[in-house]
Amino acid sequence: MKLLVTVMPKNGVLDPQGKAIAQALGTLGFGGVNDVRAGKVIELDVAETDPAKARAAAEEMARKLLANTVIESFRVETA
Amino acid sequence: MKLLVTVMPKNGVLDPQGKAIAQALGTLGFGGVNDVRAGKVIELDVAETDPAKARAAAEEMARKLLANTVIESFRVETA
Repeated sequence: MKLLVTVMPKNGVLDPQGKAIAQALGTLGFGGVNDVRAGKVIELDVAETDPAKARAAAEEMARKLLANTVIESFRVETA
Repeated sequence: MKLLVTVMPKNGVLDPQGKAIAQALGTLGFGGVNDVRAGKVIELDVAETDPAKARAAAEEMARKLLANTVIESFRVETA
């Protein structure tokens, strides 16, 4: 089954990529953009078919590898 | 209002970041991972309050800046 792990910088953590995107959008003429945060999304295709077990495994993967939990938060969804 | 733009490599496009994550998960002892695709997610906070207009603007931003539509596909959700 497929899972989506979304990793975002925590609130209050500096996000230079988001700031760069916001500035570039302004340069391209897109107005009314208050804030931009840039994160990453990891799509996992796992052999496990039980949604609860797959989700637990994905959360463990996120804590151990996919997210730096000091500065990033993550959420897991089944896709 | 807030919008989420999710950008993923198109099917068939080489995804070295995803491959590296898959390999690292294997090294860490996570079995049963068939495939990993790595993309990015951009959270936009825009002044526009009409969902349809905000979504149209976000799609335009994705086409012009956020995604490289030759190798990446994107989707826009209201958050």
